[in-house]
Amino acid sequence: MALASCLPPLILLLLLFLFLTLGISGVHSSTTLSPSAAMQSLAQKRKPAMDSELPFTAHFFPQQLDHFTFRPKAYHVFYQKYLINSTYWDQGPVHTAPIFVYTGNEGNIEWFAANTGFMLDIAPKFKALLVFIEHRFYGESMPFGNDSYESAEELGYLTSTQAMADYAILIRSLKKNLSAEASPVVVFGGSYGGMLAAWFRLKYPHITIGALASSAPILQFDHIVPWSSFYDGVSQDFKDESINCFEVIKDSWDELMVVGAKKGGMLELTKTFRACKKLQSVYSVRDWLWTAFVYTAMIDYPTPANFLMPLPAYPVKEMCRIIDGFPAGEDILIKVFSAASLYYNYSSTNSCFDIENGSDPHGLHGWDWQACTEMVMPMTSSNESMFPPSTYDYKEFGDQCMTKYEVRPRPHWITTEYGGNKIELVLKRFGSNIIFSNGMRDPWSRGGVLKNISSSIIALVTPLGAHHLDFRAATKDDPKWLKEQRETEVKIIQAWIDQYYEDLRK
Amino acid sequence: MALASCLPPLILLLLLFLFLTLGISGVHSSTTLSPSAAMQSLAQKRKPAMDSELPFTAHFFPQQLDHFTFRPKAYHVFYQKYLINSTYWDQGPVHTAPIFVYTGNEGNIEWFAANTGFMLDIAPKFKALLVFIEHRFYGESMPFGNDSYESAEELGYLTSTQAMADYAILIRSLKKNLSAEASPVVVFGGSYGGMLAAWFRLKYPHITIGALASSAPILQFDHIVPWSSFYDGVSQDFKDESINCFEVIKDSWDELMVVGAKKGGMLELTKTFRACKKLQSVYSVRDWLWTAFVYTAMIDYPTPANFLMPLPAYPVKEMCRIIDGFPAGEDILIKVFSAASLYYNYSSTNSCFDIENGSDPHGLHGWDWQACTEMVMPMTSSNESMFPPSTYDYKEFGDQCMTKYEVRPRPHWITTEYGGNKIELVLKRFGSNIIFSNGMRDPWSRGGVLKNISSSIIALVTPLGAHHLDFRAATKDDPKWLKEQRETEVKIIQAWIDQYYEDLRK
Repeated sequence: MALASCLPPLILLLLLFLFLTLGISGVHSSTTLSPSAAMQSLAQKRKPAMDSELPFTAHFFPQQLDHFTFRPKAYHVFYQKYLINSTYWDQGPVHTAPIFVYTGNEGNIEWFAANTGFMLDIAPKFKALLVFIEHRFYGESMPFGNDSYESAEELGYLTSTQAMADYAILIRSLKKNLSAEASPVVVFGGSYGGMLAAWFRLKYPHITIGALASSAPILQFDHIVPWSSFYDGVSQDFKDESINCFEVIKDSWDELMVVGAKKGGMLELTKTFRACKKLQSVYSVRDWLWTAFVYTAMIDYPTPANFLMPLPAYPVKEMCRIIDGFPAGEDILIKVFSAASLYYNYSSTNSCFDIENGSDPHGLHGWDWQACTEMVMPMTSSNESMFPPSTYDYKEFGDQCMTKYEVRPRPHWITTEYGGNKIELVLKRFGSNIIFSNGMRDPWSRGGVLKNISSSIIALVTPLGAHHLDFRAATKDDPKWLKEQRETEVKIIQAWIDQYYEDLRK
Repeated sequence: MALASCLPPLILLLLLFLFLTLGISGVHSSTTLSPSAAMQSLAQKRKPAMDSELPFTAHFFPQQLDHFTFRPKAYHVFYQKYLINSTYWDQGPVHTAPIFVYTGNEGNIEWFAANTGFMLDIAPKFKALLVFIEHRFYGESMPFGNDSYESAEELGYLTSTQAMADYAILIRSLKKNLSAEASPVVVFGGSYGGMLAAWFRLKYPHITIGALASSAPILQFDHIVPWSSFYDGVSQDFKDESINCFEVIKDSWDELMVVGAKKGGMLELTKTFRACKKLQSVYSVRDWLWTAFVYTAMIDYPTPANFLMPLPAYPVKEMCRIIDGFPAGEDILIKVFSAASLYYNYSSTNSCFDIENGSDPHGLHGWDWQACTEMVMPMTSSNESMFPPSTYDYKEFGDQCMTKYEVRPRPHWITTEYGGNKIELVLKRFGSNIIFSNGMRDPWSRGGVLKNISSSIIALVTPLGAHHLDFRAATKDDPKWLKEQRETEVKIIQAWIDQYYEDLRK
């Protein structure tokens, strides 16, 4: 049976940071939303990122539950976590040294602090205070404690607008408490956090003088970019390395289904994929592979890194080297398993894989909720891609969300609230001081702003960059173009701050 | 007893359009919030503004209750009223003629349509479609029908941010349905509606290309302008006409208290003020007078008009003429009563006055709620003013709101969400295409933007203008400067639209 006749893998989407793959549980059963193994392994990765390892102090801010209504429940207070580093902050008599704020995204804030070394790297030059703010409903910033994910009654307050209002209130309060009300605030964010940074600059220009939004796919909504752009982007990354590699992966899906449908096929797959427990569904294997290719494309960094998983430099090239290294006659599933193992087991710590472990012990599936409410990013596989063809249907997706959460997505809300359609036309004469940085190896870049909009709303595009690579701490092996990109960013931010000081003096 | 020792008249504030005077019910009792007689008379005035009299058709749009949460209740749908006039709209094959949208404020939408003749006057020149959108929780746009004002559970959804999201959604849907997605939208608003228009341009630049915000006191929050500015402005209007007039009013408050405290004093006041029923509290008389002076200053139009009440041209001058016309020895309360009668009874229809009728049969006290939640505009009387000295205290105000609505105001929310502090610094390099028009006779002008911020964020200030005078329909008696002001506005709007078309062609 060919995969094309299956129900489509509606949404291997939304894989910003803590990507929850929303796979299909069976060919003929209705689609359900379930977190993937990748999520699980991520959760394990994130554990060690404790406060003590990071050069920050942790604080909690009393935050109001609902900024946009005045119902009695809106006044419920929860404690929002944020991290501070004031090592480099110029605390002279006139407190106008800049404040750099990371607008946290869908995960605990230590995770982003640990992976945004760029801010630490540049803080001394700017004598900047660093603040990393955790997004509500992630990490320790749980409005209803352990019950925060109980139902839509609680989760309903998990929205981007509420999160940005949190940031506005926290920043304003912090500046007041530090007697730093005249300090310019620059916001930084990557991925969903990058969207928040850009939108925050647009919605709160009185709170921040500029935003560096890295890998922010703010155009991945509605019909602004083609729905197939993301998976086409992943596929192009592999095709660029090796046509054979691309073809092997493309052919593997049918082969997987053929084996899975055979008598004893699931046992065979269990063995081939070294699953710790006997596999129940061929789709979990598909999602496991899919996830490995997608994430590896996103984090195709030019140096060894440990962001989602420990990986060597240029991991897509490495994966294709593995695939291309087999003799032509080798089992196609062995080839893709070996490639995926690079992603899941580069450090050789796993003797078997928890492919179907969909549990979520760390309660990190908030993005799943966000995808089912406002962050609706339709994604399909086109004929150009190495993934099985798939379509997307608002109605079907909405039904899934209704089943899971008892609320319906609002698919056009993001573009209504934040814009995106004809963004050049709109922002050409409105707004200022935003850098959209994108690496073209990152499939999300196709949903990003890739052209300068005005003299101060700038697109920095690097052909070899990957998912918010610029935000990573500098290493001695960084290629020249990456160093130059970061230098450009620093120069632009410096110009914003200089202009601010000049305006302030007038 | 001198008034200065009374509890302060905390809040004769917030008198945008349907001004609810929140008076003090007694010297030593705790302050309560109650609508004033002026409100009542306003409600009566508004009755005749029926659809059939206006050149608009009425429509209803299914609107979601809560745009900023995804709780199940957020999906509750209500019907939002809006008015359309398409007489002048160019419905040629290419639908790009402009759409002029009035961002409705705190009252039924017919009221604003009837008093914004300017938009009808200029529609033919622009071949514009006119749309007047009613603000949620006013007029017929009641999310919970007759229960909409039941408690904070329902009223909690009455906020400016929700209202603006309503407008964004409605405008977008309307353009889609009319196949007019490329039509430029210009928003207009006066008073609170003017705040909404300006904020809407700032928050939704992808929905509107520009805003004409008339008499929008967006700086009347926090500590941006002095708290005494409003009442100082009213006082200055009277002082400009006649020092004697100013002094008489200034002296009348003490006199009122002296008489009220006398044995038989309330009966005497009942007679002097021609009250229909025996007066119970001297404070109701004070509020009644206060209201007359405040509103007359606001609507000190250069031609006869019937906005709040039918009044002659330059009514402040007329009031002072009445006061100054009495012989020096005449009873001071007779003088101020006669002046106030100009406001309450210019058309000589009342043989007595319902001074203490604080009922609210038309359910229009939504602004009262808004003032107790986000629209917190502290107001005091300084020594410069003709009103009794008064102070303002956040805590005390908050306690009143708590008593009345069981929620607390968020006094710094507006400046957090929309800015205002150092507005020149912020908007000098951010945003475009806003006209702030203010008439200096309008005491609200002191909370408005009175200086150009950039080449396209413009302040139009007229020394003799009053509360959104520019929005009224042109009359043959309009002074030259008023005609010029409107011509300037038309020219600027034309330039926005021309630029938009030019950008669109590129």
